[in-house]
Amino acid sequence: MKLTLLNSTFKADFDIIEKELEKAIQSEIELLQRASVQLLKAGGKRIRPVFVLLAAKFGSYNIHMIKNTAVALELIHMASLVHDDVIDDADIRRGQPTINYTWDDRIAMYTGDYILARSLDYMTNIRNPIAHQILSKAIIDVCNGEIEQIRDKYRFNQTLRDYLRRIKRKTALLIAVSCELGAVSAGTDEAIYKQLYKFGYFIGMSYQITDDILDFTGSEQELGKPAGEDLRQGNITLPVLYAMNDEKLKSEIIKINDQTGKKEMFDIISQIKKSGAIEQSHLLSKRYLQKALEVLDELPSVKAKKTLREIAHYIGKRKY
Amino acid sequence: MKLTLLNSTFKADFDIIEKELEKAIQSEIELLQRASVQLLKAGGKRIRPVFVLLAAKFGSYNIHMIKNTAVALELIHMASLVHDDVIDDADIRRGQPTINYTWDDRIAMYTGDYILARSLDYMTNIRNPIAHQILSKAIIDVCNGEIEQIRDKYRFNQTLRDYLRRIKRKTALLIAVSCELGAVSAGTDEAIYKQLYKFGYFIGMSYQITDDILDFTGSEQELGKPAGEDLRQGNITLPVLYAMNDEKLKSEIIKINDQTGKKEMFDIISQIKKSGAIEQSHLLSKRYLQKALEVLDELPSVKAKKTLREIAHYIGKRKY
Repeated sequence: MKLTLLNSTFKADFDIIEKELEKAIQSEIELLQRASVQLLKAGGKRIRPVFVLLAAKFGSYNIHMIKNTAVALELIHMASLVHDDVIDDADIRRGQPTINYTWDDRIAMYTGDYILARSLDYMTNIRNPIAHQILSKAIIDVCNGEIEQIRDKYRFNQTLRDYLRRIKRKTALLIAVSCELGAVSAGTDEAIYKQLYKFGYFIGMSYQITDDILDFTGSEQELGKPAGEDLRQGNITLPVLYAMNDEKLKSEIIKINDQTGKKEMFDIISQIKKSGAIEQSHLLSKRYLQKALEVLDELPSVKAKKTLREIAHYIGKRKY
Repeated sequence: MKLTLLNSTFKADFDIIEKELEKAIQSEIELLQRASVQLLKAGGKRIRPVFVLLAAKFGSYNIHMIKNTAVALELIHMASLVHDDVIDDADIRRGQPTINYTWDDRIAMYTGDYILARSLDYMTNIRNPIAHQILSKAIIDVCNGEIEQIRDKYRFNQTLRDYLRRIKRKTALLIAVSCELGAVSAGTDEAIYKQLYKFGYFIGMSYQITDDILDFTGSEQELGKPAGEDLRQGNITLPVLYAMNDEKLKSEIIKINDQTGKKEMFDIISQIKKSGAIEQSHLLSKRYLQKALEVLDELPSVKAKKTLREIAHYIGKRKY
């Protein structure tokens, strides 16, 4: 998240979240501590905490009440990344070595478990049963999504619908829930937190589609991993689905596996870029963004609305 | 758990838990569903639910209130077993193929995550903040224990203290928490649920030591896995620690690794059995059991006390 979007009061609150995250991952077990710190220092955009805080502005905002929700959600996200990297056999993320690369899959599995457990600890500070239900259902759905992602790897005959359901669970859901729970934690009416959920859902869908586009258009330096790596790992994303409408290109894409070499990948990436698939994907991403902005318009006028709108535009234009 | 110990009213309640467990692991994702059902059908003694139910008898017992606690705890236990089997590279558990064996480590990782997430879902039905705090702290400690277990593998110079701390986190803690939360869920006074925690802790320590003894004295058929498998996988248990007091035996034990053959293992197991290490381990197990019974004596006179005492004796004598 580009922090210049956020004003100084907000930045102070954001620092509180960052400090709390550092505190959250402390462990008396040195190995866990090192692995967790490595993960935290690798950074990330912290978009879930940002959405929690901004959504809370629609209710009675109190950073000490909502920080538990923000920290719990970021920890759930971090835990899912660690397990994700095991599944994807990823060596680097955000330009930093992954936990499974630095140590091994087993350490990564328990580091993920540990961070999830820490998030539960923060959840216990949330005294609202609705929040608990929303969070546990979200975690279940994230797990369902992860299993779907394994199942759908290299499954080249999947549909757009399969893809959309997958990215909903992989990304949009937790962003939607961040918006929703920020509002719930600040005691807004149901109509408002449901509306914020929708906003987060549409933003999340747009965000993930952009991510999937960047996997093809970004440079290795920007991505912190080689371009086309998702495809090489068998993750069939939107640009790939569109590109496969070209039968000739399809016949080459379906030959890809995790042994496919750099040169070959470079060639296929170029063809995908030329096929119009990137532009089509951008269109769908923009359509979701548009829906997010429409939903936002219907929300009450508070200052945070402007920031949320700016973030939405930023997400639409981001380059990495 | 030998169900003959339990009377018929209790059995009816126990059936409710079993049905609820079946419901809990339902998943729309076929692969997850199959993996979870395989795990559930492999059985297990369900000692955590039994302790939850019996401890609840010290307060105002209502099966529909406490079933959430019982199911949540059994699911946490099941999730930890799935991840455990990945760490131990175990092919079978309770005579049934493990999830990592039937599918692979990655499916097992997410099946564990999924089952843990389902347990959170049951936790959300528990309307007591104390219960949530106890549970989340317990899950954190279980994770710490798992990492310690990885770290301590094949570390032959560890102390009795290392071992005891490890089995506390691996086993005793969740049994202690089962007793504690059964009572908390039934609204007992703090003095009673703290006392039941202690009872569960001592029983759990005794139980795990017996488990570790059985790894040497049980037959492959009883154990559902080859004897000495813990040691071959580098898990240094109490009988091994005692056996290493004999320098000659120690020099052979420290050569063991996961490539050690059946014949060699058979030979070392025989020597461990002859060394007196099994008898010494039994003594410590009995001492914990004795402490459990003393703690039990101090609790108010309710009918469940007799059953708890019988279970304690059963655990002391169990053969598998």
